[in-house]
Amino acid sequence: MYSYDLSGGNKYMTLYKGLRGDILGGKLRAGQKLPGKRTLARDLGVSVVTVQTAYEQLLAEGYIRSEERRGYFVCAADMAVNERPPTIPVAKEERREYAADFVGGSTPAELFPFSSWAKLMRGVLTDCGEHLLERVPAAGDGELRCALSDYLYRARGIWADPSLIVIGAGAEQLYDIIVRLVGRDRLYGIENPGYSTIRRSYASAGARCVPLPVGAEGMDCKAALSSGADVLHISPAHQFPTGAVMPVTARAKLISYADGRDGYIVEDDYDSEFRLVGKPLQPAYALCPDRVIYVNTFSKTLAPSMRMGYMVLPRGLAGRYFELFGDASSSVPLFEQRALARMIAGGTFERHISRLRNYYRGVREVLLSKLGELACPHSVCENGAGLHFTVKFPSASDGEIKSRALAAGINLRCLSDYLIAPREDCARTAVINYSGITLDRARALDLKNI
Amino acid sequence: MYSYDLSGGNKYMTLYKGLRGDILGGKLRAGQKLPGKRTLARDLGVSVVTVQTAYEQLLAEGYIRSEERRGYFVCAADMAVNERPPTIPVAKEERREYAADFVGGSTPAELFPFSSWAKLMRGVLTDCGEHLLERVPAAGDGELRCALSDYLYRARGIWADPSLIVIGAGAEQLYDIIVRLVGRDRLYGIENPGYSTIRRSYASAGARCVPLPVGAEGMDCKAALSSGADVLHISPAHQFPTGAVMPVTARAKLISYADGRDGYIVEDDYDSEFRLVGKPLQPAYALCPDRVIYVNTFSKTLAPSMRMGYMVLPRGLAGRYFELFGDASSSVPLFEQRALARMIAGGTFERHISRLRNYYRGVREVLLSKLGELACPHSVCENGAGLHFTVKFPSASDGEIKSRALAAGINLRCLSDYLIAPREDCARTAVINYSGITLDRARALDLKNI
Repeated sequence: MYSYDLSGGNKYMTLYKGLRGDILGGKLRAGQKLPGKRTLARDLGVSVVTVQTAYEQLLAEGYIRSEERRGYFVCAADMAVNERPPTIPVAKEERREYAADFVGGSTPAELFPFSSWAKLMRGVLTDCGEHLLERVPAAGDGELRCALSDYLYRARGIWADPSLIVIGAGAEQLYDIIVRLVGRDRLYGIENPGYSTIRRSYASAGARCVPLPVGAEGMDCKAALSSGADVLHISPAHQFPTGAVMPVTARAKLISYADGRDGYIVEDDYDSEFRLVGKPLQPAYALCPDRVIYVNTFSKTLAPSMRMGYMVLPRGLAGRYFELFGDASSSVPLFEQRALARMIAGGTFERHISRLRNYYRGVREVLLSKLGELACPHSVCENGAGLHFTVKFPSASDGEIKSRALAAGINLRCLSDYLIAPREDCARTAVINYSGITLDRARALDLKNI
Repeated sequence: MYSYDLSGGNKYMTLYKGLRGDILGGKLRAGQKLPGKRTLARDLGVSVVTVQTAYEQLLAEGYIRSEERRGYFVCAADMAVNERPPTIPVAKEERREYAADFVGGSTPAELFPFSSWAKLMRGVLTDCGEHLLERVPAAGDGELRCALSDYLYRARGIWADPSLIVIGAGAEQLYDIIVRLVGRDRLYGIENPGYSTIRRSYASAGARCVPLPVGAEGMDCKAALSSGADVLHISPAHQFPTGAVMPVTARAKLISYADGRDGYIVEDDYDSEFRLVGKPLQPAYALCPDRVIYVNTFSKTLAPSMRMGYMVLPRGLAGRYFELFGDASSSVPLFEQRALARMIAGGTFERHISRLRNYYRGVREVLLSKLGELACPHSVCENGAGLHFTVKFPSASDGEIKSRALAAGINLRCLSDYLIAPREDCARTAVINYSGITLDRARALDLKNI
């Protein structure tokens, strides 16, 4: 007992650890009296200060207690300490290489204006210096909100006051805020088929969800109007995965429905920048800024890893936002916000989008012309918008479509894979999401054996 | 009209911007016909391709439309829906200057190792380049998780496998994830008094909360054990605002209580790095890694604007985490994660903490010695931990304490200001949170007239 080797290193730490180990291991039992400081110091051949420091640490952590004029007593029952197991490396994600991947859909890294971005970041670091450490208001950096307001006016034709704009760390965080603002007790109508992450985000935020069918003109109005949903999440510019574009009349119907029950439209404008034919459609937000929450991110225009998105709140919800989150801080680093603000205000962002748009126009043309040569019966459904379209193969099952594609090195999903609730009428249709396809890949694609 | 100076730079872009400006400014009205491409090219002395490219850009963005064999027409009519009011500047937060602010508590900017940080960021930008655009797993960058695992072992004596570590954008996001993992239907016990943001975060995440009294040894065990709470949120190393340190016996009791009802302890280790006397106390996590969720952030050690925190999950919850969030991406930019990983792995972080600790030790000494000279009756309650302590003024009301401080230019709050549910026994006690106080400010403080 009390035979610790304190010859090397930090003596008090070694003694502290030795005593702690003996307490945790049960060698020293609860209630047992420890030797006096002087006695132990003499026995171990160390100074009284060393023993005292070790005792004080044990005292502070509550392993022992001190009783006046009586000494120190063990007060911990047995607790197993954590021994260090061998290091388990963090698993790297495995990714299969495909000739073409129509599922993943990350913008090819070579398209990202990396040198401009790095230059902007270096500039922000130099110019803003320690200001980058200041607290950022919950809704985001003022400079970025002003730049976005100007951008939305130039590019989307809507006027969104900077004070109504909220910056968030990606779409999921924004949906989460929406649920907190509008209420968990209300019913949220979600597009079916649609991105499963949307449904999951709402559900994970604690919202009750109802799937609503998407037809050729986007979310089915009849179904929506009789659903009892208070909030309708739609992507009118270009729905994923159907590619449907919602006409202005349908938008107006849904808005007036939401208005009638004090509800909201969440307008998910995720790929509106990629209208490749004709003019960008005006967002539904323009029709009724009091009932539409406009949401967009930079996942498609910059990179999915650019964890930033923004929304424009109706005035009523903006007030509630400041009530709930006014004291909080933005969850996006000021650094990225400021660099993005400069990218947008300086015109780099729009030049980049326009370059991307031309690039994808090329990819789309190549894909459409290759599909035109396909021997098997098929029909392309394409609205000149966004970075995906669908192809119906009337004589093949979903399983056959995917396995034939896979045999040619092509990864794709069918409409039915994006169903969030069962539907019979979505079969035999492949979804061609080409946002992750380079021009070279598209040109090299061999569809002969399909 | 149409008199653009295209002599320098990118001609088509200048023309495009000129036309766009005139459309937005109303000089070119909706429905108005634009001059033919050849005519305009001749008038401006540029090539037809330049004009065509500018027109195509305007066309793509929807500023003009083309009618076959008739030419180009301005179509900005839909954009007028939303007239642009004069820009309203985003309000800057007003902050009163105090001789000393014991409420705000942001680490003074001058203490942040900004030049090291900027150097690390520049290095990451150069070394990682386009890899920074890759998708980051929901739980965070592997490099950062490994660096944190090593750090936790070195600095806190706990072994946390990197696969159990989750990086989040600040504490609020982590609490939110905890609620999603453990369940909204369970009851969360919160320290009273405590940070109001903790209670608000849980409530906003949809959790049911019960306030539990904090005494001299942290959260009251008796109250906790009879509360029915399934999850107990505690800060055993140093509770805010009481300054209580929880002895190991009490920790063990709470853990065994949580274990008995398949619940969890959330260990909020927010300022454990600032144990200013003796060594840091071992976290409760070490006692039972299967029942304790360890949470910490960089708000105190680096800067509150560094929106990053992390938690170590028990194995059971880690599985559930990957089920729920496996497909999602981290909400923290890879850039910051990588820079922080290097800061920790390279030792800069620990050197910085040790410098900070010495610095605050100085601030604490100055404050304690100044308080020692106070004429009015008072008693300091201080545990040598963290960056705050309390002072009881038995003969003054809370209102008197604050107004007398304010008259001397000092902003402070009382224990009762941090109550999240009423308690009678927290009166007459000032909270001295000195994390935002520089040494100069502390020395200049004049307490004579209090």
